[in-house]
Amino acid sequence: MQRLLLLIIVAVASQAAAQERPTAAEVLANSAPSDWRTPAPENMLYLQLPHGRVVFELAPQFAPLHSANIRRLVGAGYFDGLSILRSQDNYVVQWGDPDADGDRARPIGNAEPVLDGEFHTDAGGASFTRIDSEDAYAPEVGFVDGFPAARDGPDGRLWLTHCYGMLGVGRGNAADSGNGAQLYVVTGHAPRHLDRNVTLVGRVIDGIEHLATLPRGSGPLGFFESSNEFVPVASMRLGSALPEDERLQVELLRTDTATFSRLVEARRHRAEEWFVDPVDAIEVCNVPLPARPR
Amino acid sequence: MQRLLLLIIVAVASQAAAQERPTAAEVLANSAPSDWRTPAPENMLYLQLPHGRVVFELAPQFAPLHSANIRRLVGAGYFDGLSILRSQDNYVVQWGDPDADGDRARPIGNAEPVLDGEFHTDAGGASFTRIDSEDAYAPEVGFVDGFPAARDGPDGRLWLTHCYGMLGVGRGNAADSGNGAQLYVVTGHAPRHLDRNVTLVGRVIDGIEHLATLPRGSGPLGFFESSNEFVPVASMRLGSALPEDERLQVELLRTDTATFSRLVEARRHRAEEWFVDPVDAIEVCNVPLPARPR
Repeated sequence: MQRLLLLIIVAVASQAAAQERPTAAEVLANSAPSDWRTPAPENMLYLQLPHGRVVFELAPQFAPLHSANIRRLVGAGYFDGLSILRSQDNYVVQWGDPDADGDRARPIGNAEPVLDGEFHTDAGGASFTRIDSEDAYAPEVGFVDGFPAARDGPDGRLWLTHCYGMLGVGRGNAADSGNGAQLYVVTGHAPRHLDRNVTLVGRVIDGIEHLATLPRGSGPLGFFESSNEFVPVASMRLGSALPEDERLQVELLRTDTATFSRLVEARRHRAEEWFVDPVDAIEVCNVPLPARPR
Repeated sequence: MQRLLLLIIVAVASQAAAQERPTAAEVLANSAPSDWRTPAPENMLYLQLPHGRVVFELAPQFAPLHSANIRRLVGAGYFDGLSILRSQDNYVVQWGDPDADGDRARPIGNAEPVLDGEFHTDAGGASFTRIDSEDAYAPEVGFVDGFPAARDGPDGRLWLTHCYGMLGVGRGNAADSGNGAQLYVVTGHAPRHLDRNVTLVGRVIDGIEHLATLPRGSGPLGFFESSNEFVPVASMRLGSALPEDERLQVELLRTDTATFSRLVEARRHRAEEWFVDPVDAIEVCNVPLPARPR
């Protein structure tokens, strides 16, 4: 019994019960090679911190202007030597230029200084894998190209959702005041009230713990109050600018596949032996988005 | 504009917009003394770690057997010198006896070795402050005595929900295999699929960052793989066993008040100037549970 106590909360990797429903682990074990995709190097971002590397996939189909501007900034080395400025518990980590509002602001080069917000796009035409879920914030939730998303309906608006690990663009009170020079990552319970109010541009696919475990800032909204709290950004690079052997060799499960739908169902109906009252429900931000070494 | 970029995501403390709806900050500023309560010392738990202190409020009305057993364990100093054993990203931190399954297991004294799971109770009779929210996991969600909760309906089952910061009791595969000697705290997006499958006994009211920022364990399910990863538990104490001047002097907002209902509405309808597409929705785990110095 005591050994079992160490197991406690059984997650994806747990053992299968002798039931007809497969577990998530079994679904993945039975996936086909074609269920997986390799993200394009030009959509990969690498944030190098002193203590580790965080890897992102951009979603330019949702935020073409911001993705292009971020590529310009990253390509020019804009972020290199800047800092993580904010770590708010159960909310976000944010980085950029600590002198952005002063005379010593770093020039943004050929990047656009302000962009219209890309808060939503059109649902028509997008391949939306809807999941059956009552959602507090949206009529329909699901996945598009590997990203969690929501929409009004098939002909309405479509937007990325603020799940754990999503990458967004800081902005001021004006909807068009963001440009990609301040970025944030969701490191807590999904702040879905931000959906459609700020531009999401991608998500973390590796290394989020290097952001999520940062000490929290002592100032309002988790901002670091003095520069000795700042965590330096060593560099930020596009995957296409990295040598092949420095790129993350990873495959991501396609979300428009039968395997993914089976994974969602395996997480909705928990077949693992540990569950005594299987849930038969799932929320969009609790759906895993599996990655594996390529 | 650049100064605004530093503001970015405006939370509770944000400025009020010139609108008729109050912000959350305004609701709290207008609260009455009677809207606040002082948690009972016998329901307070203090977890002392090398780097800080985490304070919990127990919810014995939901889990009387487990609360009583935890009081026995804590009262006997059971946790002193044990370890944090697990830190799983976007999930839980867990502590207890690393030798629990071996010959060197620490004796649990007069505590019960196993308890029936207290996974839900009866909704009838409980003061349930329901909130209007579509929920993926439950027919009705709301708050009871300051804790997030869900129920089937007024005469059905009632249970605590796995929101960020909730305190739970680890168990093995058998529903009655938990006893309170292994405890966990939710440190990521609410794993609501655990609701009604494991006993929740309370929540963190102060210092959760000391758990949430712990390095993640490298083993399966975030367990630490070697003892040099363990984080020592210096002590665990009941508030009633601490001298008055060592207790957290705190008041918590009552959740059965008009002020709390106004707070929920202020978070549902975001009046802060930053929001361009106010959300008009809220999820139970995104409702703040304010604390203030007493």
